[in-house]
Amino acid sequence: MSSSRLLDRLVEALQAMPGIGPVSATRIAYNLLDRRREDALRISDALKEAAEHVALCPDCRNYCDAEGERCSICSDFRRRDSGLLCVVESPMDVESFEQSGAFHGTYFVLHGHLSPIDGVGPEELGLDALGRRLDEGGVREMILALGQSAEGEATAQYLTAMAKRRGIPASGIATGIPMGGDIQSVDGLTLTTSLENRRRIG
Amino acid sequence: MSSSRLLDRLVEALQAMPGIGPVSATRIAYNLLDRRREDALRISDALKEAAEHVALCPDCRNYCDAEGERCSICSDFRRRDSGLLCVVESPMDVESFEQSGAFHGTYFVLHGHLSPIDGVGPEELGLDALGRRLDEGGVREMILALGQSAEGEATAQYLTAMAKRRGIPASGIATGIPMGGDIQSVDGLTLTTSLENRRRIG
Repeated sequence: MSSSRLLDRLVEALQAMPGIGPVSATRIAYNLLDRRREDALRISDALKEAAEHVALCPDCRNYCDAEGERCSICSDFRRRDSGLLCVVESPMDVESFEQSGAFHGTYFVLHGHLSPIDGVGPEELGLDALGRRLDEGGVREMILALGQSAEGEATAQYLTAMAKRRGIPASGIATGIPMGGDIQSVDGLTLTTSLENRRRIG
Repeated sequence: MSSSRLLDRLVEALQAMPGIGPVSATRIAYNLLDRRREDALRISDALKEAAEHVALCPDCRNYCDAEGERCSICSDFRRRDSGLLCVVESPMDVESFEQSGAFHGTYFVLHGHLSPIDGVGPEELGLDALGRRLDEGGVREMILALGQSAEGEATAQYLTAMAKRRGIPASGIATGIPMGGDIQSVDGLTLTTSLENRRRIG
């Protein structure tokens, strides 16, 4: 309890951010109120705009700026090899690949992996959209860059079968990803190597 | 660069928070956009409300909910001993004292300390308001709880002289505060002891 109800509310709200506990939230709130209110308003505006407008790209299900619009990666089709389709579990995985600079194909973002126990099936992962994309005929290879968990493996098997039915070869990035690790925490060089050493699995 | 301009803007804006670098900002942004948009809007709203409305209490210069309103501590005069006035450098110091539960007097917040080299003089610290408060006659002791820096010491001397001119005894909390340390990082028990062991300095 501080001397201001609005300040207490801010400290409480900030704790909804991952990794921000009561001490960090208090420090952030006081710091922003003390001569940095322009920054506070800028953060407020950016949060509102993103929460209200960021949608999923109809082509790749990665984040885009507005409902029905394509994302900036799918819009950049002239500099992209649309024959290579890299399937990842989360939008942050795409950012990791983009930062490594090793991949110039296109992506498909699942936003998770198959997990029947949590009610996550093919529909929740947008696999109907992925199926349509494969049916369109331009994809010559599907690269799977999924987490090395049991659910990730099961998802990879499902996707490989989808590709196989359409005669499209599937590969999985292999080298350098530690067992049980996240794609997000791997450095760019390791990601580059794992792309170069991909091996056909379907 | 992600797939969404709004997302990039959010990641950039979040880095204005103390202790939040590019990696944390990215993680927070993606986490909030992924099924936690209500939290994002709640944080946005709390930031905007606080940045636009939180003002300084006319009595103690601590944060309050609106311009011209008294803060919740000064409004609570029935449960407060207004004869004891504790002067601190920052609003977070007040919160530390309140959490320790050791003090039931009132506060005055300087929002800094005297630092001529940075252009911070008596006016910037609201010492005219403090003078008026001392002139009103209800204060029987001024307790100084300032940082143990050279500037904190200089400020303490200045405030002690202000109190002395009005015949009001000044004391400084003494025990347990490590040299060069912040009041905010001291535990409640140490703060309690330092209040009990205060000694008269003016």
